[in-house]
Amino acid sequence: MSVEGLSINLATIRAQCDFTEAVDICLKRGITAIAPWRDQVAAIGLGEAARIVRSNGLTLTGLCRGGFFPAAEAAGREKALDDNRRAIDEAAELGADCLVLVVGGLPGGSKDIEAARRMVEEGIAEVLPHARAAGVPLAIEPLHPMYAADRACVNTLGQALDICDALGPGVGVAIDVYHVWWDPDLANQIARAGRMKAILAHHICDWLVPTGDMLTDRGMMGDGIIDLKRIRRQIESAGFRGPQEVEIFSAENWWKRPAEEVIATCVERFRSCC
Amino acid sequence: MSVEGLSINLATIRAQCDFTEAVDICLKRGITAIAPWRDQVAAIGLGEAARIVRSNGLTLTGLCRGGFFPAAEAAGREKALDDNRRAIDEAAELGADCLVLVVGGLPGGSKDIEAARRMVEEGIAEVLPHARAAGVPLAIEPLHPMYAADRACVNTLGQALDICDALGPGVGVAIDVYHVWWDPDLANQIARAGRMKAILAHHICDWLVPTGDMLTDRGMMGDGIIDLKRIRRQIESAGFRGPQEVEIFSAENWWKRPAEEVIATCVERFRSCC
Repeated sequence: MSVEGLSINLATIRAQCDFTEAVDICLKRGITAIAPWRDQVAAIGLGEAARIVRSNGLTLTGLCRGGFFPAAEAAGREKALDDNRRAIDEAAELGADCLVLVVGGLPGGSKDIEAARRMVEEGIAEVLPHARAAGVPLAIEPLHPMYAADRACVNTLGQALDICDALGPGVGVAIDVYHVWWDPDLANQIARAGRMKAILAHHICDWLVPTGDMLTDRGMMGDGIIDLKRIRRQIESAGFRGPQEVEIFSAENWWKRPAEEVIATCVERFRSCC
Repeated sequence: MSVEGLSINLATIRAQCDFTEAVDICLKRGITAIAPWRDQVAAIGLGEAARIVRSNGLTLTGLCRGGFFPAAEAAGREKALDDNRRAIDEAAELGADCLVLVVGGLPGGSKDIEAARRMVEEGIAEVLPHARAAGVPLAIEPLHPMYAADRACVNTLGQALDICDALGPGVGVAIDVYHVWWDPDLANQIARAGRMKAILAHHICDWLVPTGDMLTDRGMMGDGIIDLKRIRRQIESAGFRGPQEVEIFSAENWWKRPAEEVIATCVERFRSCC
């Protein structure tokens, strides 16, 4: 029995499985959409990963991840651009729906977040021709403001869409409920993203109360306080019809459970809570 | 030698000192502006606290805190209103510049942050006549989005100013750099707050990278990545001339050091980093 509309970001079971094992577990549950990370692809080799994707008719709702554009020196920024071009090539080879961009935070020693934000926009503009030529949409993922310093200085959907507006075709957004659920302007910005046809991915998990760790204490859908159904309706009303992609970083809970149990729970909660 | 323009929020040394001891340490360093918490005032008695404030000519840059308006049941919301009225009376008795409002997050069991936000606005509207009569300005403190679920569902300065706009005179904002530094619209909203004459307090500390705990790992000014001088210039350009109030929650560092050392460091960093 297939599970229509559900994708598994392989970070969700990264502690338990490699790419091949993760795909097997998903397929056994009828899940044919996934989103791998580049290190998971590299571990088995890009060619082998692409072969597994094609032979099983998998949908890749995204490849994670490009980004991390800001750097103190020009050489560091160039290095980031090269890496992003390689990520684009990998996404093309895998046939991914998009390359997810975690754009990067402040360069070491800097307190100038406006400068970092300019570096991000310039960096995306630099690699965009390569992405367009490869047919790989770039998905800016606004990250929660608690990551502004060290992971992503694009922190609201509105800010990400402003960049899309400035750069034109080939750039859109990945909307992860974990990062945006709190935003008082969320409904407006989702509608705007729909008008721009900029929604490339829809990530789900849950916000736990309390949250024990800023990075690795994300919750399974239904275990937290995010109104997943409301946000899903907003995203669907905006015209996005792709799968919901489960992405859970959970060092003390889900990463310690058998992968089969985690995926079974994802399916059950997807049906009941999302 | 007095330290013009510096206030100490007594939470900064709450683990080491009671109200009386904290005031003594501040006075020894020439600091004549403080911001106490209600529990610190209650511990020595409101009358005694007010006597210490008056006899030493202290400025109170705020009393912490009112708020926590949302509740699942009407009785819970009424209880919150009563408590806020008491907090207003205490602020009046102490002659505080404002009562700081940490507005509260989602009621238990709720995922409806829009409803919580309505409860906040309604709650402030309810107690506002009492605050006006008492001559106590209410300072909405937008809290970082990582506290949206459990502490404050007002998470940007713009959102707080919208409430001020809706409710009219007697409500303003407390701008804490820790909560707002990441906001891409911060400069605009500070300028707007200035035009509205709504800035009631300016809190400082720093954002550490990495941050080990979401609540009690705030940094001393200069130890993190917030551009304190830039934000100070924006706030001063907006017309606010009150003291910068140091508020540091630091369970593993500053709360473990002698209070004298903490306050001496606040003075030094205030002079060099702010």
